[in-house]
Amino acid sequence: MENIALNFNRALGFISQESVDSYKTQAEKYNLALHEKTLRGNDFLGWVNLPSSISEEHIVDVENTAKKLLAKKLDILVVVGIGGSYLGAKAVIDALSSNFSNFVKGDAPHVIFAGQNISEDYLAELRQLLQGKEYGIVIISKSGTTTEPALAFRVLKKDIEEKYGKDEAGNRIIAVTDASKGALRQLATEEGYKTFVIPDDVGGRFSVLTPVGLIAIACAGFDIRQLIQGAKDMEAQTSPEVKFEDNIAAQYAAVRNELYKDGKKIEILVNYNPKLHYFAEWWKQLYGESEGKEGKGIYPSSVDFSSDLHSMGQYIQEGERTLFETVLSIKNVDNTVVVPNDEANLDNLNFLAGKRVDEVNKMAELGTALAHVDGGVPNIHVEVPQISEYYLGQLIYFFEKACGISGYMLEVNPFNQPGVEAYKKNMFALLEKPGFEEETKKIKEKLK
Amino acid sequence: MENIALNFNRALGFISQESVDSYKTQAEKYNLALHEKTLRGNDFLGWVNLPSSISEEHIVDVENTAKKLLAKKLDILVVVGIGGSYLGAKAVIDALSSNFSNFVKGDAPHVIFAGQNISEDYLAELRQLLQGKEYGIVIISKSGTTTEPALAFRVLKKDIEEKYGKDEAGNRIIAVTDASKGALRQLATEEGYKTFVIPDDVGGRFSVLTPVGLIAIACAGFDIRQLIQGAKDMEAQTSPEVKFEDNIAAQYAAVRNELYKDGKKIEILVNYNPKLHYFAEWWKQLYGESEGKEGKGIYPSSVDFSSDLHSMGQYIQEGERTLFETVLSIKNVDNTVVVPNDEANLDNLNFLAGKRVDEVNKMAELGTALAHVDGGVPNIHVEVPQISEYYLGQLIYFFEKACGISGYMLEVNPFNQPGVEAYKKNMFALLEKPGFEEETKKIKEKLK
Repeated sequence: MENIALNFNRALGFISQESVDSYKTQAEKYNLALHEKTLRGNDFLGWVNLPSSISEEHIVDVENTAKKLLAKKLDILVVVGIGGSYLGAKAVIDALSSNFSNFVKGDAPHVIFAGQNISEDYLAELRQLLQGKEYGIVIISKSGTTTEPALAFRVLKKDIEEKYGKDEAGNRIIAVTDASKGALRQLATEEGYKTFVIPDDVGGRFSVLTPVGLIAIACAGFDIRQLIQGAKDMEAQTSPEVKFEDNIAAQYAAVRNELYKDGKKIEILVNYNPKLHYFAEWWKQLYGESEGKEGKGIYPSSVDFSSDLHSMGQYIQEGERTLFETVLSIKNVDNTVVVPNDEANLDNLNFLAGKRVDEVNKMAELGTALAHVDGGVPNIHVEVPQISEYYLGQLIYFFEKACGISGYMLEVNPFNQPGVEAYKKNMFALLEKPGFEEETKKIKEKLK
Repeated sequence: MENIALNFNRALGFISQESVDSYKTQAEKYNLALHEKTLRGNDFLGWVNLPSSISEEHIVDVENTAKKLLAKKLDILVVVGIGGSYLGAKAVIDALSSNFSNFVKGDAPHVIFAGQNISEDYLAELRQLLQGKEYGIVIISKSGTTTEPALAFRVLKKDIEEKYGKDEAGNRIIAVTDASKGALRQLATEEGYKTFVIPDDVGGRFSVLTPVGLIAIACAGFDIRQLIQGAKDMEAQTSPEVKFEDNIAAQYAAVRNELYKDGKKIEILVNYNPKLHYFAEWWKQLYGESEGKEGKGIYPSSVDFSSDLHSMGQYIQEGERTLFETVLSIKNVDNTVVVPNDEANLDNLNFLAGKRVDEVNKMAELGTALAHVDGGVPNIHVEVPQISEYYLGQLIYFFEKACGISGYMLEVNPFNQPGVEAYKKNMFALLEKPGFEEETKKIKEKLK
């Protein structure tokens, strides 16, 4: 079995191999600390051994729940969640689906997310869509009171109960929530929903391999065993027993921190396969929330190439020299299209005739890396053998482990997100939520 | 008729009103220069008077072409183009469509883009999708030899000719290309395609109001007259006769340049309505390609809030203080969803009962602006009365005009994109394109 591979040779014109190697001691120390739970944020390290600790019983439970739901021949599964309760499943499902899956009805239902925004049009149009469809709902919320998903679920719950009656609606709703506390746990108990537990020690952005991600991924028809297996293999390959030189998560953490020290303030995650668009969104949450604090942190950004070579390409080639790129390079694609010969050859493309389209894509990738390096943009290359459940599992754990180590190198707590509360507090004050009377007074004063 | 409005009061804690006002002379000079074509890039200023110079005859031609194509009851219209030949139409169509338009067959065809990437999976899956569908193709390319669209069109042309026969295929293909030169013009003449002209003096990223954007938008069922009217009204409102104080394009240009001078290196375009996601992608090309050069330029980024408050929100609130935000705020949404009362009130949301969802969204928006300003992120507010053809037209021209002025303030040529060639040259060398023998030798040497 191949593994994902890291290559940062094209960053070494900007930082030295020695400077990367100098991270060895701290990288190994921080990796060990993640396993021994000795440093900051140690209440939220359940993800570290998660892949190797998932039980067969749990996997079967998820699989059977998905099977039971799918037996209802759903057209659509609505997954209600925000942040980590949205991006992990979305990333995996999009990566594994056809680019045009929305247009075709397959065996599995379309997975549509809700409660990840407060757009009235979005919710109204979703309700309209659902009217004529067979559907079910997965509601994901630790507390059950996060505004966005709670609001969407309040509306959608009424609709599904109206459509199917309360009993059958209850059979079509799955709740992923706290083991014992909170509004959603209480509701699920009262209504008799099938439930799954969000572990206390796994933060949202690290939760894709918990039921938070697994239920939706299984319902979309994908193999969660392979996903977990990939993560488990990467867990082994990045364990504290593996020395720095052989640990790609530690190496990636070191390289990006050294580039940051060198003035590279923006990391652009690059793909050449548009199915990975949401994988980059998941990655942005992982790194942005873990590292963007105390006035520090690399700004995470992403592009879909070659599309965005025709939008962001100019800036990346010649704008401020504060960028570096991390490329997700997919070795083998799933389909085959060979460039046909054309007698007239008006488009001058006959030199490509007989080649696969992916060969052209690969040369765009290599040509771009060389051009950007020449333009002053260091390049990190992450080679992924193919887009499959197994390698997505590897990739997820690779980025998670690297993120933990990298956040410790940056000397922040990578496992909190204190800044996310600020807008919520203001929003509640503006909406005059009971309990926020003091804040309401203050904010109204401020807005005068 | 209301207009879009600019408010930068929440940037004034970071820069002063006086510093903004000090841009008056240059802003007015540069605005005049755009109209009189006296400064850099003056070969590409056709967009400046474009809205007011579009003839009734041209509009009717576009409308009739769309009607004729739609009479064929297309399921799908494939639009082949990259960069400006992709993002403008995509931005407008997405903004005006249901969030779930992919899942429902309406009167107009689904517009699917191709040739904006080199993904073999994307092209293969598109071909598969098209097999069972009624479809037509719009191919957009000035030269007809840009690799991405030319490659996709070479494959799709063979398919459509196989499906419908050469004659009927020719009736289903529209070419948007150079008036007289180039491979696509020649092909269109030979095959008898209906054609439209890409003006010589309008660059790709400024081309959405030429046939490059208009054909696809009209075929998707939207009102191009209103779009053009909005742009025309904004053209008048930002003309050189309008003084700096009243010219929102000039003001926006001044504020963002002053923030940049003040160390704000990243501009985040924010929306609270996910339909505007691709409008931000269009904006990123407009500003990134126009300003990202000579080692300068604000890095354009974008987020969909409140979704991304749960991913990028932490960084924006507490990361490096080098950001500012520009918010696209939609005053009136199209649909109505009222938060229902719930007797049990487990989710504690009854304080919102009776409110519209959009009221909650608006308080999220205001609460976030206040929180981010408190956290050190200046905020620019662009209020848009609603998402409609007319206001999208206003918004497009507003950003274009501001971009021209802003680029001159930055002392770059805002109308070239020399950096986009670098990857292409390498790619051709690696693919051993005839004519690139010397580059092929060099690059192979380099890769040894």
